[in-house]
Amino acid sequence: MNLTEQFLKTREKTETICSPLQTEDYVVQPIVDVSPPKWHLAHTTWFFEQFVLVNFDQSYKVFHPDFAFLFNSYYNNLGERTLRHERGFMTRPSVSVIYEYRKYVTSAIQQLLDSKPDIEVIQLVEIGINHEQQHQELLAYDIKYILGTQPTFPAIGDYFGLKEESHEQKWLSFSEGLYEIGHQGNTFCFDNERPSHKVFIQDFQMSNKLVTKGEFLEFMEDGGYKNFNLWHDEGWHYIQNNGINSPLHWHHKNGDWYEYQFNGLDKINLKLPVSHISMYEAYAYANWKGMRLPTEFEWEVASQQIEWGQLWEWTNSAHLPYPGFTQAKGAIGEYNGKFMLNQMILRGASVATTHDHLRNTYRNFFPASSRWAFSGIRLVKNQN
Amino acid sequence: MNLTEQFLKTREKTETICSPLQTEDYVVQPIVDVSPPKWHLAHTTWFFEQFVLVNFDQSYKVFHPDFAFLFNSYYNNLGERTLRHERGFMTRPSVSVIYEYRKYVTSAIQQLLDSKPDIEVIQLVEIGINHEQQHQELLAYDIKYILGTQPTFPAIGDYFGLKEESHEQKWLSFSEGLYEIGHQGNTFCFDNERPSHKVFIQDFQMSNKLVTKGEFLEFMEDGGYKNFNLWHDEGWHYIQNNGINSPLHWHHKNGDWYEYQFNGLDKINLKLPVSHISMYEAYAYANWKGMRLPTEFEWEVASQQIEWGQLWEWTNSAHLPYPGFTQAKGAIGEYNGKFMLNQMILRGASVATTHDHLRNTYRNFFPASSRWAFSGIRLVKNQN
Amino acid sequence: MNLTEQFLKTREKTETICSPLQTEDYVVQPIVDVSPPKWHLAHTTWFFEQFVLVNFDQSYKVFHPDFAFLFNSYYNNLGERTLRHERGFMTRPSVSVIYEYRKYVTSAIQQLLDSKPDIEVIQLVEIGINHEQQHQELLAYDIKYILGTQPTFPAIGDYFGLKEESHEQKWLSFSEGLYEIGHQGNTFCFDNERPSHKVFIQDFQMSNKLVTKGEFLEFMEDGGYKNFNLWHDEGWHYIQNNGINSPLHWHHKNGDWYEYQFNGLDKINLKLPVSHISMYEAYAYANWKGMRLPTEFEWEVASQQIEWGQLWEWTNSAHLPYPGFTQAKGAIGEYNGKFMLNQMILRGASVATTHDHLRNTYRNFFPASSRWAFSGIRLVKNQN
Amino acid sequence: MNLTEQFLKTREKTETICSPLQTEDYVVQPIVDVSPPKWHLAHTTWFFEQFVLVNFDQSYKVFHPDFAFLFNSYYNNLGERTLRHERGFMTRPSVSVIYEYRKYVTSAIQQLLDSKPDIEVIQLVEIGINHEQQHQELLAYDIKYILGTQPTFPAIGDYFGLKEESHEQKWLSFSEGLYEIGHQGNTFCFDNERPSHKVFIQDFQMSNKLVTKGEFLEFMEDGGYKNFNLWHDEGWHYIQNNGINSPLHWHHKNGDWYEYQFNGLDKINLKLPVSHISMYEAYAYANWKGMRLPTEFEWEVASQQIEWGQLWEWTNSAHLPYPGFTQAKGAIGEYNGKFMLNQMILRGASVATTHDHLRNTYRNFFPASSRWAFSGIRLVKNQN
Repeated sequence: MNLTEQFLKTREKTETICSPLQTEDYVVQPIVDVSPPKWHLAHTTWFFEQFVLVNFDQSYKVFHPDFAFLFNSYYNNLGERTLRHERGFMTRPSVSVIYEYRKYVTSAIQQLLDSKPDIEVIQLVEIGINHEQQHQELLAYDIKYILGTQPTFPAIGDYFGLKEESHEQKWLSFSEGLYEIGHQGNTFCFDNERPSHKVFIQDFQMSNKLVTKGEFLEFMEDGGYKNFNLWHDEGWHYIQNNGINSPLHWHHKNGDWYEYQFNGLDKINLKLPVSHISMYEAYAYANWKGMRLPTEFEWEVASQQIEWGQLWEWTNSAHLPYPGFTQAKGAIGEYNGKFMLNQMILRGASVATTHDHLRNTYRNFFPASSRWAFSGIRLVKNQN
Repeated sequence: MNLTEQFLKTREKTETICSPLQTEDYVVQPIVDVSPPKWHLAHTTWFFEQFVLVNFDQSYKVFHPDFAFLFNSYYNNLGERTLRHERGFMTRPSVSVIYEYRKYVTSAIQQLLDSKPDIEVIQLVEIGINHEQQHQELLAYDIKYILGTQPTFPAIGDYFGLKEESHEQKWLSFSEGLYEIGHQGNTFCFDNERPSHKVFIQDFQMSNKLVTKGEFLEFMEDGGYKNFNLWHDEGWHYIQNNGINSPLHWHHKNGDWYEYQFNGLDKINLKLPVSHISMYEAYAYANWKGMRLPTEFEWEVASQQIEWGQLWEWTNSAHLPYPGFTQAKGAIGEYNGKFMLNQMILRGASVATTHDHLRNTYRNFFPASSRWAFSGIRLVKNQN
Repeated sequence: MNLTEQFLKTREKTETICSPLQTEDYVVQPIVDVSPPKWHLAHTTWFFEQFVLVNFDQSYKVFHPDFAFLFNSYYNNLGERTLRHERGFMTRPSVSVIYEYRKYVTSAIQQLLDSKPDIEVIQLVEIGINHEQQHQELLAYDIKYILGTQPTFPAIGDYFGLKEESHEQKWLSFSEGLYEIGHQGNTFCFDNERPSHKVFIQDFQMSNKLVTKGEFLEFMEDGGYKNFNLWHDEGWHYIQNNGINSPLHWHHKNGDWYEYQFNGLDKINLKLPVSHISMYEAYAYANWKGMRLPTEFEWEVASQQIEWGQLWEWTNSAHLPYPGFTQAKGAIGEYNGKFMLNQMILRGASVATTHDHLRNTYRNFFPASSRWAFSGIRLVKNQN
Repeated sequence: MNLTEQFLKTREKTETICSPLQTEDYVVQPIVDVSPPKWHLAHTTWFFEQFVLVNFDQSYKVFHPDFAFLFNSYYNNLGERTLRHERGFMTRPSVSVIYEYRKYVTSAIQQLLDSKPDIEVIQLVEIGINHEQQHQELLAYDIKYILGTQPTFPAIGDYFGLKEESHEQKWLSFSEGLYEIGHQGNTFCFDNERPSHKVFIQDFQMSNKLVTKGEFLEFMEDGGYKNFNLWHDEGWHYIQNNGINSPLHWHHKNGDWYEYQFNGLDKINLKLPVSHISMYEAYAYANWKGMRLPTEFEWEVASQQIEWGQLWEWTNSAHLPYPGFTQAKGAIGEYNGKFMLNQMILRGASVATTHDHLRNTYRNFFPASSRWAFSGIRLVKNQN
């Protein structure tokens, strides 16, 4: 697939993800982590307009002068922007205008690509595609959160389903030694995956399965949410202050546990991997089992021998720069570097992750409190 | 006009007010005072369903069992309800479903009225009409706030325009004495307008005009927002903490003052009455002029001799029960009584007030900090 | 007693109130309503220094240049001041330096009074005495709050004891008519007690007793704190958000109710008047009894025939200016006028009130949520 | 020095640190990070009482039954405790009672040590000594914060002075390779310093000096606090929201920078190392220089060749468990493990650190926003 095809496919997929939504669903922001779907649609478009068209297409006329302000996310170098927590108050431009905006920019980029642009354009379009793919995944989280907040729990179809973790439990062993970590070669990756470098890793054993909802329910029933010894001090306060006693999207009704999925509210399936847990909960669960979460380096080493891709897997590694990491100059340099503090790494991928992002060097990250993402738990034991 | 006609007219008018909106505009809640227009549409309908149809129409089937929960406002006696500050997260039911709900209930009430119901039904429908008319006015405030929050300041037409206060300034004198205050007779009024009772009032003079934007600008230019001596202690802290230095909807651009109106952002017209000010600002302005705001009793006495109805006029009276006030039993008794604390009275009416509410005994009330209503200032002087 | 004697007695009494305290008790501010005792000691002194000595004693040298900043309360006209909620962080100047400051200023005022000063000085000293007497009462509230917050509930002696309300319950009747309200004559009163003016009052009956702890306990046991129909909307939210289910200083232990008093934690005495309740609670209690709180005007009219002075009695009147009220010029004009919004009137006096303040025209006021004051409940019925 | 001597010396030193304080200074808590000095005095004593005497001295009678509740810090396993942010409201027990408590427990421990206790007691006393030494350092930070908050900037003497960083700037080179990190052998260390393990480190160069106030001032004057490109996203929001534009304890007066030190407010000495900066500021400074902060592993490797001990040095490492880390059982296991999230490591020591803590494996940690500690900046460059 050439770049133009890849670009068009990406643009189309974003719109497909949104296709089951009603106009009203595009607008709201029930928590600050969630952005309105219309904002995602516009912001990913703005990215191409601002980084590519404005700079490299002299004949380009911006679709609307206000949009640079309205749909910038956090790029300080590109000027003022709507406050993040006010995205859900923006009713104008309407959803249909935003779809026109998409069409307009998609077509302009397509023409630019047809004109044999130089390498800088191609690299920026590549980043733009990857950026939009990241937002596709966020759209999945946000749509689920928005619909899961409705007291009516609307069903919109059978999206992003997980498969049961029914294979036999095994503990895979890995030996201590120096390993090469990070992305190598010239193919695309995000800035935080480089440079590739050596890391010394001690012996460890990793599970070949994700923790299931059934297993997590045992933790709950054993008082896991009430035993402070299992928790980080910060996590303990967080669950107390927010009254958390189950994963997000779980609801206790008439003595049974239900879970909101895209196809509505249903009884939980105990064999599916547990999802929508914070790193605090993942850590407490591992503690309760007498085990621990992997480091991101252990995960990367083990990734060849394990099945992954259902859910992002919380690690016990902080999002920190690799040795020799340097930020790019200008706005594009704001990509990941400024988030290298108080964010925890998740490795792998989820059912909402685009295939292009299935790299075992990919470093996803969220604050430890995040629960709206498609996250799961994989356990590690120290070698006996 | 008979009750059925009045009912149908009211229902229709609510929808007319919303007709310039795009679907997205119906959904959001930028501040807690504002309710999403779709919520108003549904809540006023729910009121008829819950108080009239459920109780008095045995053949009635509720439109949807969840709606009692979704669209209750603050009637504790009628069970659980959506938290007020979460109204703006409700995307479902969609706007079009809510319009169906309106149709369904309107038609059921119409049939019930056709069936010669007893007096209790008629009284409740009357309250329901007045309740919906109150929400029509709130809709005007809320729509203005929602659109006025958009960075693009959309123009939707020439609604709720004010006329210039261009008549000659006069000071009307009123003599001390015992006056009868409150609603008399059997026609409809809200519970807080009764009982009618005697109040002794001292000599005073009242302006025959509202304060204009031009006059208010003088206050601003004289440093009115910076002189704590003019303000209540609470008001002073409020404007400091919220960075307030002009009425709501005013914007300072390139050295000029603009105001958002339904037809867009325009330079202020100095001859129009100033609006969108809190009671704090009204009080500080009066102080600056060496005058004061009227009491609600003075206003009622003077109302016969003044022109009113452009803007609600802040008084210096607190919303307290009239002597002998008693709450009705049950849910309907929650109407005004529970708001008789820390709310200030506004008298008169605004251009967004329905004609049926033009009563000089009408006691509107808001917290002193409210600025999104169509409120204005009328001055009073003590007699020399 | 001449003015000098009155002045010296007042200064001494403030120090007597503080005499049971340990140094540590003088320093802290557990809630924003409470000021550290050392702050009261200094602020009342600063008032004399700033309003009298600095202006009228040319030979006077300020004790310390920083104190004007440190011990100003809310007089904006007198410049910057310590933020109210940071008073409890001020360890310096020490308690002993503040006592020196008191001595220094007391002596300077005494000399000034001996020098036959003109009437303005005499009036300001009179205000200063009354101001310090108000702070004596606040000291009683604050000391009780500070000590009542200690997990060890220290006993410091038998201060400010109440007597049982054991006289027979009677309902005193008052007839409708025009009454003269407010302070008359030339003796001292605060600015908000004037001008005297006529008010028309309807028939009412007032209890000759305060509500007792035993009676209030019946309200509690009947679910008074759980029945929203009894509460203002604002009050209901307040008790929910703050988890309030009894008066302040009450503690439930092993099935019994205890109350912190200055002599320690003891079982409640059911015959004493209930205290430390907010206006919300007073109102809900009255509602539960099918009665109401008096207006401040009813209270003033009835005061001649009732016993009062144990506890400040919540009224259902807001703190608003009397007809013809005007603020004094300058800093002294900031006294009460700027608090004439969202404050409720209490009438009478408490056991912590100085005898000089026993005026039936005295208008005390607090926000409806205040519970740390010595407040009580007296009921009123409309005439049958 | 034997254990008893070490114990007694430690107990004495804590009291020496507090000796310049007035009683009032012992009580307050101006920010949640700061604990009142009297709380430190009591809490370190409670630690010996609770972990040693209560468990291992059968004849011991607790000094006061309430103290276990009052002076527990965060040991959930040992029951309820005063909320951290309410420590500054505790006036009782008084400072003098707390000194009696210290005497009582010191003497009881001394007797226990004289009785040839078994190894568990000795190990716990050793932890207790180290625990108290940690609090000695916190006392230095807290006392400085409390006094530095006083508008009068009291001078209490020449404590904890720094020396100028006047030696010649050099860049020390270190070669990539596998290094052994963490505490080895049987001498005392905290739980987070173990187990010792191998880490692979890349080439780097480290400065032989700390960044000085003069150098930091250049950053400030170059607009460092206004250039978002230099900051973490979280750090940028933090300084915006808190109005930070200089290190803590710096004050701009009449065009000059002053700093509060224990001997009062003085002009800054440009040659001293900059202190009282958050990790955000340390990071931004390093960014501005085109360099970076060391990792904790680099620091440990380089520590043999550099001078350190003036200020704790922020690293770019998160506080995470070493491979193979396990928590001890019971309350003592709560020591460091539960803080292994969203805390950044500082290495080295400060002038307020006891000599017993001068270990190059010591892992101090604070949230990135902490500014009240004695923290500084050392730069690292990647090898060219």
